[in-house]
Amino acid sequence: MSTRRVPVIERIMGANDTQAADNRRIFDEHGVHVVNIMAAPGAGKTSLILETVRRLQGELRIGAIEGDVASTVDTDKVRAGGAPAVQINTGGGCHLDAKQVAQSLNEFPLDEVDLVFIENVGNLICPVGFALGEHTRVAISSVPEGDDKPYKYPKIYANVDALVINKIDLLPYLPFDLEAFQKLVRSLNPDIELFPVSCVTGEGMDAWTSWLQNLARAE
Amino acid sequence: MSTRRVPVIERIMGANDTQAADNRRIFDEHGVHVVNIMAAPGAGKTSLILETVRRLQGELRIGAIEGDVASTVDTDKVRAGGAPAVQINTGGGCHLDAKQVAQSLNEFPLDEVDLVFIENVGNLICPVGFALGEHTRVAISSVPEGDDKPYKYPKIYANVDALVINKIDLLPYLPFDLEAFQKLVRSLNPDIELFPVSCVTGEGMDAWTSWLQNLARAE
Repeated sequence: MSTRRVPVIERIMGANDTQAADNRRIFDEHGVHVVNIMAAPGAGKTSLILETVRRLQGELRIGAIEGDVASTVDTDKVRAGGAPAVQINTGGGCHLDAKQVAQSLNEFPLDEVDLVFIENVGNLICPVGFALGEHTRVAISSVPEGDDKPYKYPKIYANVDALVINKIDLLPYLPFDLEAFQKLVRSLNPDIELFPVSCVTGEGMDAWTSWLQNLARAE
Repeated sequence: MSTRRVPVIERIMGANDTQAADNRRIFDEHGVHVVNIMAAPGAGKTSLILETVRRLQGELRIGAIEGDVASTVDTDKVRAGGAPAVQINTGGGCHLDAKQVAQSLNEFPLDEVDLVFIENVGNLICPVGFALGEHTRVAISSVPEGDDKPYKYPKIYANVDALVINKIDLLPYLPFDLEAFQKLVRSLNPDIELFPVSCVTGEGMDAWTSWLQNLARAE
């Protein structure tokens, strides 16, 4: 099986990288900074996007490209939050690819935004292998997932620019060692930016939104 | 890409199903009931296995085959809990396959157990497409993931025999509508068994362990 699969996968990855470079060129032409958000199901990707849109209203024009296996529930939420959003449904696919993102841009008002979140399919494994044309890669961990996940899914922690540690309002109820967790993540990725936040209480959100504003300004 | 990929995937699935049937025959020869546990990262697969082992000690001999992208942390925990366990590391693979399980059986004492949990890689999408030779398929959802996940990942909810709804001790702190969630899951899978549980408080665990004991007795 493996001898047959390798060349096929190489062709897929080559085509994806080419399309990702094309996407990147389009984003740059429009002066839009693009953030690829990856996380396990239920880590709070959509909640983080919604709370970020709310906090930066009037300061930064944000849009979202929402990836899911099925449904439009996240796109509906983001639009209700006042931001332009398009949905990509992958059918059974476990990650977004650059071609899907390129197609979604046909319906997306790139001239009306400064920053775009691409919310990837909920999955800690597959999305990190596929460039979408993004400038910045962010993973989200959430406190209820437990503090051992970097041992099990090291690749995503090693290959993102920042990690949002979400749902810290639940720390009093769960055995999650925030210090040890951050140390473990930094052992995999010494340059990573870490943002412990709660979208419910707002704790830590100022540092996160300031960081995003700096990224968008640099564009 | 799709015209090239389909035949390759068909060959992979055909080989996997053949190996899964072989695995099943081996499990049946040993009178062992095998449960494939699938869930998102951090839903509590290992905690559920550990608490089940603890509660059924002296009544049912349980073992575990632990699947992860990397590390042996779960196998170490299960062994420390007194049950035989072997680790499968998939490298970058996003699900277990039947061949990996077959190889792991070389080190597994099938004659010393009545029930084996196969803890799949933490992923709500890919594992459900690969039979491992199991008799029973169980998914775990956890309350912090939110009650909208069946909309986004319908295939797993539609293709399991039972769903454990874990971490119900966190219901007071989170906006999770347990009634609506169960109704949504049943709309995808009318025959599914539902077990709301907390591995921390023990609530709901008796129904879950009784169900497992009946499965193992029928073997």
